[in-house]
Amino acid sequence: MAGNTFGTIFRLTTFGESHGPGIGGVIDGCPAGLEIDLDQIRYDLDRRKPGQSRITTSRTEADEFEFLSGIYQGKTTGTPIAFLIRNLDYKPSDYDQVESVYRPSHADFVYDVKYGFRDPRGGGRSSARETAARVLGGAIAKQLLYSHLAGGKEFRIDAYVSQAGSVSLEKGYEELDLDKIESTIVRCPDEGTAKAMIGEIEKAKKDGDTVGGIISCVIRNPPAALGEPVFNKLQADLAGAMLSINAAHGFEYGSGFKAASMKGSEHNDSFVNNGGKITTVTNRSGGIQGGISNGMDIYFNVAFKPVSTLMQSQRTVDQSGKEIVLDAKGRHDPCVVPRAVPIVEAMAALVLADHYLRNQNSKLSP
Amino acid sequence: MAGNTFGTIFRLTTFGESHGPGIGGVIDGCPAGLEIDLDQIRYDLDRRKPGQSRITTSRTEADEFEFLSGIYQGKTTGTPIAFLIRNLDYKPSDYDQVESVYRPSHADFVYDVKYGFRDPRGGGRSSARETAARVLGGAIAKQLLYSHLAGGKEFRIDAYVSQAGSVSLEKGYEELDLDKIESTIVRCPDEGTAKAMIGEIEKAKKDGDTVGGIISCVIRNPPAALGEPVFNKLQADLAGAMLSINAAHGFEYGSGFKAASMKGSEHNDSFVNNGGKITTVTNRSGGIQGGISNGMDIYFNVAFKPVSTLMQSQRTVDQSGKEIVLDAKGRHDPCVVPRAVPIVEAMAALVLADHYLRNQNSKLSP
Amino acid sequence: MAGNTFGTIFRLTTFGESHGPGIGGVIDGCPAGLEIDLDQIRYDLDRRKPGQSRITTSRTEADEFEFLSGIYQGKTTGTPIAFLIRNLDYKPSDYDQVESVYRPSHADFVYDVKYGFRDPRGGGRSSARETAARVLGGAIAKQLLYSHLAGGKEFRIDAYVSQAGSVSLEKGYEELDLDKIESTIVRCPDEGTAKAMIGEIEKAKKDGDTVGGIISCVIRNPPAALGEPVFNKLQADLAGAMLSINAAHGFEYGSGFKAASMKGSEHNDSFVNNGGKITTVTNRSGGIQGGISNGMDIYFNVAFKPVSTLMQSQRTVDQSGKEIVLDAKGRHDPCVVPRAVPIVEAMAALVLADHYLRNQNSKLSP
Amino acid sequence: MAGNTFGTIFRLTTFGESHGPGIGGVIDGCPAGLEIDLDQIRYDLDRRKPGQSRITTSRTEADEFEFLSGIYQGKTTGTPIAFLIRNLDYKPSDYDQVESVYRPSHADFVYDVKYGFRDPRGGGRSSARETAARVLGGAIAKQLLYSHLAGGKEFRIDAYVSQAGSVSLEKGYEELDLDKIESTIVRCPDEGTAKAMIGEIEKAKKDGDTVGGIISCVIRNPPAALGEPVFNKLQADLAGAMLSINAAHGFEYGSGFKAASMKGSEHNDSFVNNGGKITTVTNRSGGIQGGISNGMDIYFNVAFKPVSTLMQSQRTVDQSGKEIVLDAKGRHDPCVVPRAVPIVEAMAALVLADHYLRNQNSKLSP
Repeated sequence: MAGNTFGTIFRLTTFGESHGPGIGGVIDGCPAGLEIDLDQIRYDLDRRKPGQSRITTSRTEADEFEFLSGIYQGKTTGTPIAFLIRNLDYKPSDYDQVESVYRPSHADFVYDVKYGFRDPRGGGRSSARETAARVLGGAIAKQLLYSHLAGGKEFRIDAYVSQAGSVSLEKGYEELDLDKIESTIVRCPDEGTAKAMIGEIEKAKKDGDTVGGIISCVIRNPPAALGEPVFNKLQADLAGAMLSINAAHGFEYGSGFKAASMKGSEHNDSFVNNGGKITTVTNRSGGIQGGISNGMDIYFNVAFKPVSTLMQSQRTVDQSGKEIVLDAKGRHDPCVVPRAVPIVEAMAALVLADHYLRNQNSKLSP
Repeated sequence: MAGNTFGTIFRLTTFGESHGPGIGGVIDGCPAGLEIDLDQIRYDLDRRKPGQSRITTSRTEADEFEFLSGIYQGKTTGTPIAFLIRNLDYKPSDYDQVESVYRPSHADFVYDVKYGFRDPRGGGRSSARETAARVLGGAIAKQLLYSHLAGGKEFRIDAYVSQAGSVSLEKGYEELDLDKIESTIVRCPDEGTAKAMIGEIEKAKKDGDTVGGIISCVIRNPPAALGEPVFNKLQADLAGAMLSINAAHGFEYGSGFKAASMKGSEHNDSFVNNGGKITTVTNRSGGIQGGISNGMDIYFNVAFKPVSTLMQSQRTVDQSGKEIVLDAKGRHDPCVVPRAVPIVEAMAALVLADHYLRNQNSKLSP
Repeated sequence: MAGNTFGTIFRLTTFGESHGPGIGGVIDGCPAGLEIDLDQIRYDLDRRKPGQSRITTSRTEADEFEFLSGIYQGKTTGTPIAFLIRNLDYKPSDYDQVESVYRPSHADFVYDVKYGFRDPRGGGRSSARETAARVLGGAIAKQLLYSHLAGGKEFRIDAYVSQAGSVSLEKGYEELDLDKIESTIVRCPDEGTAKAMIGEIEKAKKDGDTVGGIISCVIRNPPAALGEPVFNKLQADLAGAMLSINAAHGFEYGSGFKAASMKGSEHNDSFVNNGGKITTVTNRSGGIQGGISNGMDIYFNVAFKPVSTLMQSQRTVDQSGKEIVLDAKGRHDPCVVPRAVPIVEAMAALVLADHYLRNQNSKLSP
Repeated sequence: MAGNTFGTIFRLTTFGESHGPGIGGVIDGCPAGLEIDLDQIRYDLDRRKPGQSRITTSRTEADEFEFLSGIYQGKTTGTPIAFLIRNLDYKPSDYDQVESVYRPSHADFVYDVKYGFRDPRGGGRSSARETAARVLGGAIAKQLLYSHLAGGKEFRIDAYVSQAGSVSLEKGYEELDLDKIESTIVRCPDEGTAKAMIGEIEKAKKDGDTVGGIISCVIRNPPAALGEPVFNKLQADLAGAMLSINAAHGFEYGSGFKAASMKGSEHNDSFVNNGGKITTVTNRSGGIQGGISNGMDIYFNVAFKPVSTLMQSQRTVDQSGKEIVLDAKGRHDPCVVPRAVPIVEAMAALVLADHYLRNQNSKLSP
């Protein structure tokens, strides 16, 4: 009930605080026999880790992980897969003032209200460090999907930055070369736009300020039939997954908010017989109809607010209610979206892996 | 796993098809001793029912409900509250052609893929008729919240239409008189905008077309401390709830998608001591920080696509893959948002009631 | 959380009070495409219904059921299967005194403590009438198992009465002809023992007294691999299921309580190669090892206390704490076990159907 | 779904194999503000650990635990409490033969059937070593209950050995001094019986054989109102919890299997007014009526089979189906019950802590 478990059949439970012994998780429900590729896990963790480029926090953390259970001779055994990432690099003095202060737009105040007290070091459980466990869990979910869905070759989950501050990518995913996402440090596959985004983020950093952004995610060649028709529509579970990421403020899939001003005659996706396979001519449905994937690409956007920790003085109150000025301190990201790309992918993979397993029981095998 | 249950402590399970014997639900986990106000339930159901005005479908359905259990002498007993709404008005001939045809942007195709066959009458389980059970469940959740939260007087959940097709309401909720929502058939509290919206919808209807829209929802004076910090952040559960409503394509709370282009120094909500109570000067956080309500108003938007059933001929395929032309038939809404207002409120109430009960165990009582 | 739902993938939620409008349930998670045999449901309900023989209560109730959803053209559609059994026959005057009195060994007192008040009519939710919904849900679970497991011919779930009061059946299930269970009104397949049991029950009835008993259940030719290895061991879920039946006081499987006084060298079941199939020579494990079915017959016993409602005066207290004498009234069973046979079978079927579906995801298909 | 999580609000997820890096768990849903007593945890783990006396296995394992999260300054913070117990002492050569052999009455065979392959070292996940995580989780559940229930002084959960092989304790718990449980290595509070039990176990050990036994558990001065009335009756959840312990073969509470041969007039517990408090004269209900605790002591028995690992040669088959003779090897317990006492207590504590938190929402506070 305390909400640290995600999924119904493929279930990830995470634990850990920013400055405690470590963070980690337990995956329960991963089928036996899946070969685990450690390099792929490392690759995703590296894309999330701090200190990876000049537009992220200068804090560094190697994110070395250890599997504690559930894997034998390189394969999952069907038992819980527990993993641990020890916390190594932190400067507790960065957080001295924080203990008694409510940082603006942070979770300090609500944790005190909800729990009566809190672990103040680095935000404790509310730190984005928690998302490393999601990325690791998501990497395993990806491997399940990649190895288990048709060929594994064509099915792909890719996220990229489509907006950073005021700089926005105008092209849709079909016009982009998604293989270029990792070729820029901002993770935008369009080189010119990427350059402008980096400029925007560097300027914010220089000003001691931060900017928000948007991450777009596309799932190419998904299987049809994923999603449950009422409360667990595929888009509902994706929306819940995305809004559970720190700093996320919005979600839209397919035509999204633009659908509001469209007419049905413009919006409907006509079915056609595409050489024996039923597809749709357009894909404003974003690959999901009636809550269930129809086999077309699934795509969605996630909006993120600007990071709340500024390198500027801010007015706020302390625990006693006294109004004070909070001085800037510590090392933080000027923009969250470049590092949030693998988190969005991970949450998408967790949703899909779970629905893939759920769907095994939707009808009797003939 | 099949996803017809919503919530963890306050749980609503719904059932029923559009043209079967009826639809209904079971609420498990409602505390004992809650007095049930039948008029309030009737009021919410009436706001959702078809045939209520000239801008909704002309199909009418009284939505008479019967409680089957869980209420004794007008009060909840702590046992499951089951309710049933019989299906009365339908014209099966409206759906004759539909059985073998995949209507564009409807769920017919994906149901066949997922389940191997389907109940084709009126969309079966994928019909928006299912949402009547949500409205009834939500009405009880509202009563729990209204009766149980501070005074019950100030706490309010109100939704209204802020966009219909191209007509958009520019004012924020603080500038509106929310008591006027029900004074127009489109459920927009600004009279001038409402008039324009109604015009837009009537034009679409005349053209045999449909339009999308946006519903805004505001929860005034919520308790602080609702929401769980990781996967069940309050905004995550609200997003999942809203995207589970038929035709919803997007969700944003607080600053929403606009946050993407904002700077941290503009976006942060400073804490102040408001006569002994800690509040924030601005509320771009939408009343939620770190996934937990901070006591400020919670507000969010939900985008809806235009209704897929058109009074126009459309190209599509049938079950055999043959390309055909689907003729317009039946009675349908030209715009879903006026009738979706109580559904958005109901889902918000279900999320809040559940989190209210979940929060009873967040800390040891002193 | 309120505990009216059973199962994880194949989920039954029940509702209803003894003397409200009716009782019923919702099955969520039954795969699509299962043909429903109404006669089989009727058969199981009839074996549970009151008034079926001279050793059950003289109260009669036809238990007419109606499906409200989830079935189309005689087959499950994959959507929730809701059903309703209206309450028809009851004499409210039978319960006049009961409202303010705490009947010995009944649930009246604890309901008042837990919920603050209660529906006193016929025991409300605590009435064994609730089990009719279990029998109906279990009948569908049986049909899923029977139609879906190897041939459907050999797999069988059969329960029978092995003890009624002091009369006990000494033979094990292998020595009995289980086709004869229904040939006696006490549901004991051994004719001589059945006669003695009936005599014991009739004597208790004449004395205004009641007797307890034991039901044995055997699941022949189950599939191997059902059950999850830690908290949801197959025997754990069976035990929980059986102890959730009104009046059940004990559960044992395989060697059961006798195992306590056995030696390992007597108790171990040696594996042998049985014409290419690995089986065990003995079956003290009751078909379950490490929490997982091994393909041998699963068998267990459930002990029931004597019915608490007596046709004798009893000392007790009322709600105010005043000590009073409760006079005998109403119509009740002198022994619960003959009618509980289909309930035990139903709960076993629900456990197995759920574990059968859960097991679809235990390993990757090659 | 894979069943490694126990509980609904107070949830324990366990992980780990006997001979992997370690075992551990995550507790989610423990309220914030609970002071953790490490000595009490150590005390319970020590009572479970191998090598503690001459009647347990000679294998030793210190069971050093580390908390990874959820505790700050000695108190729970409301976030997940993760803990890890590294595996230190094992002799892999003990298990050389085991990899390809199906040990009689062990889980080797069913794991291969269910998962396609398995971690064979020391039984992997099926090893009773997994129960150390339960004991640690249960110790925290106990602390929650002890600190939070009336005074904490009178409420107690105590288990003891009431049968070992053929030696059985005839007295009920009211006749015993439960403070003497730990004064004998067999954990039987009656000195004479304890001596006979130890003799029985030592004889079995000398013979290379093993014996079963029974553990009795009593929960003194429990709060009333715990338990949910239908599927999660308190006895149902206790039964499920107990049968999830390795080697458990039976459960009975209150009058248990003896109830089967009793008459209602003997069995009913009359209510009386005990100086203003309503209690029962007798307690054959075992403190639970209608699935809900009534405030009287809760007591139950759990039967355990003899340990399957013998120091004798046994006939069995290997993975290829070849019949072979398995030679005795390794270090094992001649009787499981002395070390299972804290496991039974832990599972009881987990059930009660969960139901205690569940019950906070059973009725509206006035």
